[in-house]
Amino acid sequence: MHQTFDAALGINLLHANQEGADHNRAHFDEWGITCLNLMSSPGAGKTALLEKTLAALSFTLKMAVIEGDMTTELDADRLRQYGVPVIAINTGRSCHLDSRMVAGGIHRLAHEYDPASFDLVLVENVGNLVCPAEFEVGEHAKVALLSVTEGEDKPLKYPIMFREADCLLITKTDLAPYVDVDLDQIEANVRQVNPKVTLFRVSTKTGEGLDAWFDWVRSITTVQRAFTGTANPLDVVH
Amino acid sequence: MHQTFDAALGINLLHANQEGADHNRAHFDEWGITCLNLMSSPGAGKTALLEKTLAALSFTLKMAVIEGDMTTELDADRLRQYGVPVIAINTGRSCHLDSRMVAGGIHRLAHEYDPASFDLVLVENVGNLVCPAEFEVGEHAKVALLSVTEGEDKPLKYPIMFREADCLLITKTDLAPYVDVDLDQIEANVRQVNPKVTLFRVSTKTGEGLDAWFDWVRSITTVQRAFTGTANPLDVVH
Repeated sequence: MHQTFDAALGINLLHANQEGADHNRAHFDEWGITCLNLMSSPGAGKTALLEKTLAALSFTLKMAVIEGDMTTELDADRLRQYGVPVIAINTGRSCHLDSRMVAGGIHRLAHEYDPASFDLVLVENVGNLVCPAEFEVGEHAKVALLSVTEGEDKPLKYPIMFREADCLLITKTDLAPYVDVDLDQIEANVRQVNPKVTLFRVSTKTGEGLDAWFDWVRSITTVQRAFTGTANPLDVVH
Repeated sequence: MHQTFDAALGINLLHANQEGADHNRAHFDEWGITCLNLMSSPGAGKTALLEKTLAALSFTLKMAVIEGDMTTELDADRLRQYGVPVIAINTGRSCHLDSRMVAGGIHRLAHEYDPASFDLVLVENVGNLVCPAEFEVGEHAKVALLSVTEGEDKPLKYPIMFREADCLLITKTDLAPYVDVDLDQIEANVRQVNPKVTLFRVSTKTGEGLDAWFDWVRSITTVQRAFTGTANPLDVVH
């Protein structure tokens, strides 16, 4: 459910959400955890990317996942096969995770495990290219995914998500030969709304680009821990 | 912007939206217009479907489009090439069209044209598989699109949209050989949340299934006009 026209109330809601996000981030910082917030349209490949990431990085980083879905634990169950804690949050009618929901996930994680033993918490948001971009959950960086099948124009038509993203993955590049898209044009459109974003082209099917993504995740996790409270890790990683 | 937890306020907003939707529908009924509301994730092919529909049906139906996008008139400009009136609505930060925005579109249409001369108004909603499903805009039927590239599990994970749809199009079937999806499983998952939905498999690239979709649009438009105010056209078309 949404409210769109009561700007005063909307600002208050976003303020309240921001306070919750700051509280969550304070917990992460206290425990030396880096948190990434993964966002995209439904079916752009967030869960597939997480599967590859958990498989590739589990020897070097201790990870947990906070998995947001309106209903079901289908994605959570897929990720549990990788032996990491997966906290499932069902948002019900809500189209995005907010900081209060994620706070519930963090407290469950801290109750069942030693939170200070984790390096990285990966939040998979509800599949939605619009709403999650406005609700910070306590992450240190926002990661957006855009599938090649969604078309070149999406960064221009849904600018908020692309403007907010610290890292953007163009996914399913293996399908590029079968759809009428120009990857350079997608990149140009992304850069038009967000010149500073870190950008990768990936395919979880062929493996294209995944090593660069893994390197970025490793870097930001290491740097985040070293600089907690003193600097923006994104300034160091870039 | 959204509000999610204040259930009382949420209900009021939806009530207000519903009143506006009923008002819009009363206008459509008065003018003998059928209105369809097209909804899907970004990039599932709403605009491409509209292009084919405008091209195929313009000899038999007088059509107009109300085109919702957060920003830009990219889609509206694509559709204007087909010689029909296209009213562009930019929703700004809002993730869906609501009945008030569509009322503005209807009034612009009625101001510039004789509204009673139209048979069919096609509303293209903002690309979002979650939020538009909750906000009726005055349509006589809801049409949802799901691309094969989004995966089989989406009807289960985003049930509201699939439960609300009167007609569901599984799009981009030409890409099915290149993605790991079972079309029968998609259909089974759709039927699980909505056994009565009318379902088509289409590809705007190969033309598969489009004739069946055109027939459905023609039928509902004819029946809607004949039965305005006396019956639910969907009961007759099925």
